[in-house]
Amino acid sequence: MSAAGPPEAGREAPRVAVARLRSRAGARAEVRGWVYHLRSSGKIHFLQVRDGTGIVQAVAVRGEVPEPLFEAVGALTQESSLLVRGRVREEPRAPGGAEISLEEMEVIHRAEGYPITPKEHGPAFLLEHRHLWLRSRRQAAILRVRDAVIGALRDFLRKKDFVCVDSPIFTPAACEGTTTLFAADYFGEKAFLTQSGQLYAEAAAMALGRVYCFGPTFRAEKSKTRRHLTEFWMLEPEMAFATLEDVMDLAEEMLVDAVSTVLETRKEELKVLERDLGKLESVKRPFPRISYAEAARLLKESGIPFEEGGDFGAPEEAALSQRHDRPVMVHRYPHAVKAFYMKRDPADPGKALCVDVLAPEGYGEIVGGSQREDDYETLVARLAEHKLPRESFEWYLDLRRYGSVPHGGFGMGLERTVAWICGVEHLRECVPFPRMLYRIYP
Amino acid sequence: MSAAGPPEAGREAPRVAVARLRSRAGARAEVRGWVYHLRSSGKIHFLQVRDGTGIVQAVAVRGEVPEPLFEAVGALTQESSLLVRGRVREEPRAPGGAEISLEEMEVIHRAEGYPITPKEHGPAFLLEHRHLWLRSRRQAAILRVRDAVIGALRDFLRKKDFVCVDSPIFTPAACEGTTTLFAADYFGEKAFLTQSGQLYAEAAAMALGRVYCFGPTFRAEKSKTRRHLTEFWMLEPEMAFATLEDVMDLAEEMLVDAVSTVLETRKEELKVLERDLGKLESVKRPFPRISYAEAARLLKESGIPFEEGGDFGAPEEAALSQRHDRPVMVHRYPHAVKAFYMKRDPADPGKALCVDVLAPEGYGEIVGGSQREDDYETLVARLAEHKLPRESFEWYLDLRRYGSVPHGGFGMGLERTVAWICGVEHLRECVPFPRMLYRIYP
Repeated sequence: MSAAGPPEAGREAPRVAVARLRSRAGARAEVRGWVYHLRSSGKIHFLQVRDGTGIVQAVAVRGEVPEPLFEAVGALTQESSLLVRGRVREEPRAPGGAEISLEEMEVIHRAEGYPITPKEHGPAFLLEHRHLWLRSRRQAAILRVRDAVIGALRDFLRKKDFVCVDSPIFTPAACEGTTTLFAADYFGEKAFLTQSGQLYAEAAAMALGRVYCFGPTFRAEKSKTRRHLTEFWMLEPEMAFATLEDVMDLAEEMLVDAVSTVLETRKEELKVLERDLGKLESVKRPFPRISYAEAARLLKESGIPFEEGGDFGAPEEAALSQRHDRPVMVHRYPHAVKAFYMKRDPADPGKALCVDVLAPEGYGEIVGGSQREDDYETLVARLAEHKLPRESFEWYLDLRRYGSVPHGGFGMGLERTVAWICGVEHLRECVPFPRMLYRIYP
Repeated sequence: MSAAGPPEAGREAPRVAVARLRSRAGARAEVRGWVYHLRSSGKIHFLQVRDGTGIVQAVAVRGEVPEPLFEAVGALTQESSLLVRGRVREEPRAPGGAEISLEEMEVIHRAEGYPITPKEHGPAFLLEHRHLWLRSRRQAAILRVRDAVIGALRDFLRKKDFVCVDSPIFTPAACEGTTTLFAADYFGEKAFLTQSGQLYAEAAAMALGRVYCFGPTFRAEKSKTRRHLTEFWMLEPEMAFATLEDVMDLAEEMLVDAVSTVLETRKEELKVLERDLGKLESVKRPFPRISYAEAARLLKESGIPFEEGGDFGAPEEAALSQRHDRPVMVHRYPHAVKAFYMKRDPADPGKALCVDVLAPEGYGEIVGGSQREDDYETLVARLAEHKLPRESFEWYLDLRRYGSVPHGGFGMGLERTVAWICGVEHLRECVPFPRMLYRIYP
């Protein structure tokens, strides 16, 4: 606390969040926050104060405010914490539509030598200072979009009767093989950190009809691309009595809803991110739905070297998505490149009843889903083909022993979806504290 | 699929969720689900079908339905999956207020020998079959209450301008010492699974003002009581520019909101759980707020042996909470029994500016919070006193180097709160797939 007194003093100006200042135009208000930027013309100080909900400019004119206050403002340092009080003025050119005529100020804590300056910093430096980097306008905007996406997804699913049923993080067995799993010591036994809650969501769907899990998942991939995190959040809805068509309908409707919610509630943040709003506004139903076979034909026609039968890599996904102004759904991949639990297409047993949703602008796969194999004998055979230990999956087989029904769902990578909506290149900026190969600090 | 044909056939009766059947009274409807129970009087079959949203009774009267249909209903087995169609009748005595006069039925998959029967099973057996146990009326009700609590908490925080900022699971250091941490192999290095996202939430609060994280947390406690899980969900709001009073106000308002939302939206489930609604209806503001010193005096007066200066155990918490019809807030514990990051009370430096919220009916602590130490030098001294490695906390100290502000927050154990609201004794029933000492399957 500075000598100017405790923040509780002098309360005739009510505390207002920057995002709500405009509604106080003409009246006095108090803002509590941090110095984001200070620009001075000699005669006028333009002090930008951020409080987490936005940034407001407080203006102090020499001669109009007491000289000691004017001097004190001029001596402020970046990221010092403070209270400012003054009259709110409508100002259409300001981000939140309002400005403050500074009348009083109290410095709470003076910051010296804040490491992140307006100059350019390299990614290693910024990641090392992630706990401070979050304060920058761009990073805060991404986190606020991420929050809006999370809220939109959960609201959407609730309206559709889905029940949140969290899957466990500690798992005894691998869903898709153990090579990319993190192992933990569980009281002397080995446990793995979940790669996907899907198998558990399937069990819950048989109990509650429509469910979803939404939590952190883990991939021990030794990959250093801008598309990889070792820890990321995944949303996995699962529906009993559902076909691949139902899965595609749900993914489509949910993505449209999430994008339109962000457009409605996070316009200011999208502006900070310099996002081309037209690209988001065109995300409407219906999304193009093309089969893997059609996709393979399109790739060949475009002269992209691609061996039919294999999975798509980043170049193929980019080529396919760039043909459309909205996400494209590619369905019915060869079962050989997909997981054991996917049901095969009765019309073409070489294919799986699955779908990948590829985001536009080359953002690649954001959703992967399928109808699940619901026949007991077939699933037993699949486990053997994939050399998975049957004893670990006995409980999963139970779902096919007792009242099996057609069912399906998908997994949506939260950070990949946020990256696309924000128009951000690197996943590491789309999660609060990124975990990557060689990085678990801070 | 049975020979009766695919579920897509004969669609003039629209598919309706059991929870919405009542609105279809007088019309035909189709329900897809599982056989929950079958009772027959010889002349009449009472077939209970569950679909995840509720349980409906379908009635088939011999002579009124074709004889093969009547026979087929009589041969149904528990948990077989099926479609039933018929006319919806209002029936005030039925749980959802409606019944179906059975006209058609299609068996999708016949279940043989479903292991969980209406007879009593021991907890070990039920936990081993958790993937099926979820289908029972009681377990499904608990999960639906859990879902409503999650939704209420997130909605409440959104209305109050809190931004969801997920904290990481992999952490390089311990928040409160390493003895109860799970270690994982992180590409050859050791990483710990988070016990609390608070330190990260503090960093995010300095960026966004009001934030919360809500995810799984881990405690490697070799404890086998009904009050312990090794993996549980914790909600942790954190506010910049906040005092202990603000923290208590927030916890109080949030708990009242969560309970009233459950009362409004999950009445049917509370009935299944035979919850005394009066106990929940009395959860209103204000909650009693008593200091640790007062609490210690009350315990002594009640003749409970208790050494002042120590933390409260389950018997003390129960004794304190049973004096009130709503949660009680105990504040200002001796700092010696609390974490290093708590700010000490300027009025009594032996005490910490902290609060525990004890649920009524002996459910114990559901919330623990505090104002955080915001002075750099003091925090450095606390780390040394607690023998914590300073280098792991350099980033955390940065929050006190650059624009430190008074701030605070709390952690709320989701499953403990759900146990209390549901009136359920064991935490293991309040999480979808419990992880305990000696249990990570299924």
